[in-house]
Amino acid sequence: MRFTSEQRLDDGVLERQFTLGEIPGILWTPVSASAPVPLILLGHPPLGLHKMYPRLVARARHSAAEGFAAATIELPGSGDRPRWAAAEQARADLRRTMEAGEPVSDEIIDALILPLVDKAVPESQAALDALLSLPEIGGPVGYSGGVISIGIRLAAVEPRIVAAGFFAGSFVPRTMFEEARQVTIPLHVLLQWDDEGNDRQAALDLFDAFGSKEKTLHANMGGHTGVPQFAGEDAAGFFARHLR
Amino acid sequence: MRFTSEQRLDDGVLERQFTLGEIPGILWTPVSASAPVPLILLGHPPLGLHKMYPRLVARARHSAAEGFAAATIELPGSGDRPRWAAAEQARADLRRTMEAGEPVSDEIIDALILPLVDKAVPESQAALDALLSLPEIGGPVGYSGGVISIGIRLAAVEPRIVAAGFFAGSFVPRTMFEEARQVTIPLHVLLQWDDEGNDRQAALDLFDAFGSKEKTLHANMGGHTGVPQFAGEDAAGFFARHLR
Repeated sequence: MRFTSEQRLDDGVLERQFTLGEIPGILWTPVSASAPVPLILLGHPPLGLHKMYPRLVARARHSAAEGFAAATIELPGSGDRPRWAAAEQARADLRRTMEAGEPVSDEIIDALILPLVDKAVPESQAALDALLSLPEIGGPVGYSGGVISIGIRLAAVEPRIVAAGFFAGSFVPRTMFEEARQVTIPLHVLLQWDDEGNDRQAALDLFDAFGSKEKTLHANMGGHTGVPQFAGEDAAGFFARHLR
Repeated sequence: MRFTSEQRLDDGVLERQFTLGEIPGILWTPVSASAPVPLILLGHPPLGLHKMYPRLVARARHSAAEGFAAATIELPGSGDRPRWAAAEQARADLRRTMEAGEPVSDEIIDALILPLVDKAVPESQAALDALLSLPEIGGPVGYSGGVISIGIRLAAVEPRIVAAGFFAGSFVPRTMFEEARQVTIPLHVLLQWDDEGNDRQAALDLFDAFGSKEKTLHANMGGHTGVPQFAGEDAAGFFARHLR
């Protein structure tokens, strides 16, 4: 991991851009911390770190205020990372299908999500290796948001992640339901009740499938982008309980 | 309303027993309050105030810590109030049906719940009249817990109640779904995902039916009595947002 830039934000948060091999990423740490801090790995949709920056830095500031570091990396095929023909094709197929008002088939969802999960999960694990080797970061690690299928596999295979907050707002391949049963860490799942691009019953079935003994579903009114502010506060309480 | 006893609890809460006509009740107020405070009306199952006291006083202490008064009244037919033949019959029918492992019919649910709602709602409104006339209580009013059908009708008909926290853990007559559509105040609904005596799909349908623009469902693992402590903390945040 190589730090490429560093700036101190006005509220006592140190923001460092880094690269991990070819993968760009950002790390935020609370300046005031005197001991190694827990880490929240921030997931995001495959829109590129530049585009996602305002929302990511807002979440990172909240994490820092709780005494946690936060970090995120660019997803495969996003931002400045090399395009990826199969993923572009899958996104184009999805767009065409939705614009035509047709049901999104399992084939399209699989093509869109499964290769992304296969690539992103080992990259996230490599990022954890690097981040947890920094003296200022001690763990434990929480995972928050982003493409839920990436989070499911990470939560199932990565023992350093002790708690996860998911947003049930993206397509989930059928095979991920089986992986969801392998997840046993505490979960905090957000659902937007009227999410236009999301199947509510599938989200409830997914919540039911998780193997965790502690799992909470927070369903709120509104569409995909209408998550109320208080939902973020409840999620912060969840991470405070599990990472402190 | 006549106060019949008064004691100061060790954490700065004044507890006063009262009677409202024939109906016993309890009022808790934070001693330190210098201005009239909001009120949370605490619902409870029809088990009698004596039996419910430990759980009610715990909830009232939390309310007082937030700066809110809390009050509750004995339900019709419960505690020391006169028995009520039709309600006793309905309870006996329910017990027999459940012990026999048979499905609980709409007729049994209606006989159990609807007369209780018809009696309890005007009594709760009379209690609000009396409580809000006290100089130390200013409103607004929240309603929390108890038999959800009582809460639904109260929330639908009583304009002084501005926010309600419900526990979707008891039988709800079909006709209450229509009343639920009339509810428009902010709602915080708890659901125990594996509640043995509760139909999960009916609870989700009920949540969907509420007419409120702001409504949140918090579903947690476990059975009827397994509501985790953090669920109470999230509910406290809900009332703090709407009653302050």
